[in-house]
Amino acid sequence: MQFTSDNAAAVHPAVWKAMMAADAPDAPYDNDALSQRLDATFSALFGRECAVLWVASGTAANCLALAAMVPPHGAVVCHREAHIEMDEAGAPGFFLHGAKLLLADGASAKVTPETLAAVIDPIRDDVHQVQPHAISITQASEYGCVYRPEEVAAIAAFAQARGLGLHMDGARFGNATAYLGCSPAEAAGAVDALSFGFVKNGGMGAEAIVFFDVEAARTIRYRRKRAGHLQSKGRFMAAQILAMLEGGLWLGNARAANAAAAEIAAAVPGRLLHPVEANEIFLTCTAAEREALRAQGFAFYNWGADAARLVTSWDAKDAHVSALARALAGL
Amino acid sequence: MQFTSDNAAAVHPAVWKAMMAADAPDAPYDNDALSQRLDATFSALFGRECAVLWVASGTAANCLALAAMVPPHGAVVCHREAHIEMDEAGAPGFFLHGAKLLLADGASAKVTPETLAAVIDPIRDDVHQVQPHAISITQASEYGCVYRPEEVAAIAAFAQARGLGLHMDGARFGNATAYLGCSPAEAAGAVDALSFGFVKNGGMGAEAIVFFDVEAARTIRYRRKRAGHLQSKGRFMAAQILAMLEGGLWLGNARAANAAAAEIAAAVPGRLLHPVEANEIFLTCTAAEREALRAQGFAFYNWGADAARLVTSWDAKDAHVSALARALAGL
Amino acid sequence: MQFTSDNAAAVHPAVWKAMMAADAPDAPYDNDALSQRLDATFSALFGRECAVLWVASGTAANCLALAAMVPPHGAVVCHREAHIEMDEAGAPGFFLHGAKLLLADGASAKVTPETLAAVIDPIRDDVHQVQPHAISITQASEYGCVYRPEEVAAIAAFAQARGLGLHMDGARFGNATAYLGCSPAEAAGAVDALSFGFVKNGGMGAEAIVFFDVEAARTIRYRRKRAGHLQSKGRFMAAQILAMLEGGLWLGNARAANAAAAEIAAAVPGRLLHPVEANEIFLTCTAAEREALRAQGFAFYNWGADAARLVTSWDAKDAHVSALARALAGL
Amino acid sequence: MQFTSDNAAAVHPAVWKAMMAADAPDAPYDNDALSQRLDATFSALFGRECAVLWVASGTAANCLALAAMVPPHGAVVCHREAHIEMDEAGAPGFFLHGAKLLLADGASAKVTPETLAAVIDPIRDDVHQVQPHAISITQASEYGCVYRPEEVAAIAAFAQARGLGLHMDGARFGNATAYLGCSPAEAAGAVDALSFGFVKNGGMGAEAIVFFDVEAARTIRYRRKRAGHLQSKGRFMAAQILAMLEGGLWLGNARAANAAAAEIAAAVPGRLLHPVEANEIFLTCTAAEREALRAQGFAFYNWGADAARLVTSWDAKDAHVSALARALAGL
Repeated sequence: MQFTSDNAAAVHPAVWKAMMAADAPDAPYDNDALSQRLDATFSALFGRECAVLWVASGTAANCLALAAMVPPHGAVVCHREAHIEMDEAGAPGFFLHGAKLLLADGASAKVTPETLAAVIDPIRDDVHQVQPHAISITQASEYGCVYRPEEVAAIAAFAQARGLGLHMDGARFGNATAYLGCSPAEAAGAVDALSFGFVKNGGMGAEAIVFFDVEAARTIRYRRKRAGHLQSKGRFMAAQILAMLEGGLWLGNARAANAAAAEIAAAVPGRLLHPVEANEIFLTCTAAEREALRAQGFAFYNWGADAARLVTSWDAKDAHVSALARALAGL
Repeated sequence: MQFTSDNAAAVHPAVWKAMMAADAPDAPYDNDALSQRLDATFSALFGRECAVLWVASGTAANCLALAAMVPPHGAVVCHREAHIEMDEAGAPGFFLHGAKLLLADGASAKVTPETLAAVIDPIRDDVHQVQPHAISITQASEYGCVYRPEEVAAIAAFAQARGLGLHMDGARFGNATAYLGCSPAEAAGAVDALSFGFVKNGGMGAEAIVFFDVEAARTIRYRRKRAGHLQSKGRFMAAQILAMLEGGLWLGNARAANAAAAEIAAAVPGRLLHPVEANEIFLTCTAAEREALRAQGFAFYNWGADAARLVTSWDAKDAHVSALARALAGL
Repeated sequence: MQFTSDNAAAVHPAVWKAMMAADAPDAPYDNDALSQRLDATFSALFGRECAVLWVASGTAANCLALAAMVPPHGAVVCHREAHIEMDEAGAPGFFLHGAKLLLADGASAKVTPETLAAVIDPIRDDVHQVQPHAISITQASEYGCVYRPEEVAAIAAFAQARGLGLHMDGARFGNATAYLGCSPAEAAGAVDALSFGFVKNGGMGAEAIVFFDVEAARTIRYRRKRAGHLQSKGRFMAAQILAMLEGGLWLGNARAANAAAAEIAAAVPGRLLHPVEANEIFLTCTAAEREALRAQGFAFYNWGADAARLVTSWDAKDAHVSALARALAGL
Repeated sequence: MQFTSDNAAAVHPAVWKAMMAADAPDAPYDNDALSQRLDATFSALFGRECAVLWVASGTAANCLALAAMVPPHGAVVCHREAHIEMDEAGAPGFFLHGAKLLLADGASAKVTPETLAAVIDPIRDDVHQVQPHAISITQASEYGCVYRPEEVAAIAAFAQARGLGLHMDGARFGNATAYLGCSPAEAAGAVDALSFGFVKNGGMGAEAIVFFDVEAARTIRYRRKRAGHLQSKGRFMAAQILAMLEGGLWLGNARAANAAAAEIAAAVPGRLLHPVEANEIFLTCTAAEREALRAQGFAFYNWGADAARLVTSWDAKDAHVSALARALAGL
């Protein structure tokens, strides 16, 4: 029973179907009919004009989005536990040619204008110190917590006041939007670019970089190719994304994963290290308890010495989820 | 009738089947069972130990392979019409952190020890000039021509004598091997790393970087992640590659594409700009003639003012091929 | 008798004097009074507003100037024998984060709108090919030849028509201006940035990057620091430059070097490989002849198998120059 | 009365003299006789073989030294207040092509094996996290504190145990050595490379990178040129360094600066924020007190809201130093 990662989840049948339907001759790279539909589809979804590029990984999405905002001599401010800082192998340093990440604090891996200011305010405005050019926030955060629209708005206002770009890492943007029960436009707020994740939510290998600054996307098309991310049979990537958007599949899948997490969380409220708002549960769990759970067939990651991380997926089986909830309650 | 690009070709049914079979929970990234099988599978295929990484594009494969050989202050020598020079948007400069490409001549986009020496010999051995660290050759070349084993051997001997690494861009390695009728080990010769292409030959979005210098692959695993190319559902990439190797599918597909090209070439021997040895035909063709062909439903690229490029695929339809051969003969 | 390089020449006494005068406490980096005078001094010299940064080498000057015009995914078009291509160890690739140099032809290492167009016109306007963002020309050229104002104007018009920046490598800008007998503004024409060289012309270790696009200099101040080129005792660099400009010392020194070269050239008109317009002489000279010259005490570089490069300096001794002219005539 | 920065200090007369003596024709770059003497001179000074490169700034020295140890996908561990982190404009990110700095704690800006381990131990040994490749320590530290030989030895042992390179930023290595009263070899310990600073200690614009890993220097000679730091009249840089070493001038100058700092520190023991071991004094000082000092003619930097930084130089005037000591005591 798999609670290790939503990356381990299956590809949704509708995605398979769309990919197979795309298996007809069409122009290579992103000149195919499906890729050409992305801009309009996302513009309709968000209710404002955007330009959209597919890439195969969240790391590529995040870094190419940030490349539109940050020069090599600049910096990005993000939470000190953000994925771009902790788990992308220094990819921002590669894509941004040595730009720095400046690390802010905040509960549950969410930053606030105050924690951002605490990083930015001490920076002298001279050439000896690296100047920030963008902020990157994660929706939902590394601890599965969701920025409320007013929280995003406050950060966006802060970014604008400081002349900084704003990027949202939305590897689990579906889960965040599902939790908020609002429109995707409200969940994204006034960000300049969004890494809209699909792989963890039923896709196979396609994420969307949504540029609300349409002009910025022009340059990033060159950068994407230059990074080896312009796949020649791009129609299969566009097909995945369009299938995920079709009929709100992305939201439905996210709701299913969130519901599974909520059921598990409800069984052990006293153990929760963070509010469970998306599809991740971080809870206290001793080594002995973890062993006991694994003995019952549950797979998951340790989280330090006395905790565990459980991740639910769109395809979580009810029986597995209930079994895990019971097992946890019975510890 | 599509003769524009082998990137426009379909995904082979066996590849689809393997991908769908991979749609069961497994470890993310390249920790899944399929990805873990790659090293042994390729080692058996080539009859010597190798370490293999999947990536989604030939550009990523070429550049990550070269990153194992060339420091930022070094250079790669390649043909002046090589894909890495002409059509990868400067990706080598990105992945190699500003290393240079030094451009050699040679008929049909194939280099020789002589043309390589003509580039390398004048370089002063001082810190003011960029020093070569590797050679990159393309099998089959940009003009669809194939290095004979003895030609690769001569280049490999030259590389070794000069202390240079040797990389082979094998975007159409299958076509080259099929043409030569030899083993893949013979077609690759003593290269240090091979970009083994599958996308143009029936795959969807997975190429293999084959490191015969096994130790070099260790570093490149970090570089792959750092470039956003370590896909989280990597099992689907490994599945494609294993399916292509299974039962020699890659060779069968390549033979089909080559045969189609040969049929077309045979119809217009006087027009050929280069020997047709793989699945590409470059021929003289006036603007009027191209118009006439397109009017009959044939799609292809112009190649300068008075020539055309025709590319055949593994799934080329016999009727289309014969029709094109007739149409060309009738011009 | 030294004709190897103008880098071997002495530092002018007026430069020494200015440096010693600068040896009083002042603010570090470029906050000292001398550095703060550069913008106004050069603006007066060129009759239009400019922003000026000192750096210690022509390589740094060229690359930081280009960094203001060319993004990492772009390219610079220059002559294939330009210093940035041949003798700067790949520095443009480093400072421009992997941007390419595209190589144009032209007699005596001078490009023309036609030779530039021959490089640029074939580039497809798509993301697969690296797009040019700037042109770099060398005044005087690597072969000591000088662009006439109308030649620079034609190139500047071409650059503007193509939307490209224009940089001038003026390592020997003094020699070029002296030859032309025009104002520095006329010798530079409508370039966006000029690397104004002083080291070869009587300075010690300070060159000026003159940005006629004043805003561009703002970013490059960060880039300079980031490249380790913001020296902490910058007052000594500014002092050198101001001393060179004071009373037209730079022009006087250049005239002296040019005159020496002209005297030598006049002795062997039939041997000259390029017009002698600045302080470099390239002439046919067999190995035996070179040996004979060296036996007489003349030091210089070979230039390939049957030629030699002779460089004169601001401090060339009349007797040495005359002796060399006689020796050459007597070969 | 200048206590702002040792960068504001004068150039020592012996350095001037050596520079002027170098003003005779010699080979350009580092092929001159003086530059060629550096390796042997430093090898004798340290009692072990080393290879030495001059550069114009501490930033360039630090980054080129680290470039010998850290690949683009790696990291350097340093104190969170280290100069390379705080005041070099992101230069390590530039020279190391995006490698990260990982930040350790420690009193008075000195790290220990324990604080280093606290950073390194949590790093997972997988491709998702950036792996450390080197440690950089500062002798004396940013707060003017000196590593004892046994402290360096402990860090070197830690580095060796973890397979990490060890770099020492010795911008004030002279002051540290003078304080310790030991040999330079003991003050440097078993580091792999040392940035040996002279500019703050009586030089003009030359620092030495001392590679105890002699082979590593070979590559860095290319990197130096590529960074625009191979000055063409390098003889003037070598001259400065040799003059500073001649007769122990570097130690004498450092002792003078240290003595001045000690005199000032002795006047206000209760205000000191850090032990005064080199030539920097950090002390509590309210805004009103700072104003009072400035009214008496003392120039220095604020250090946050309620502190000040005072820096003494080799050429500090006794009267100024005593006056400052009195003024501080009288606050």
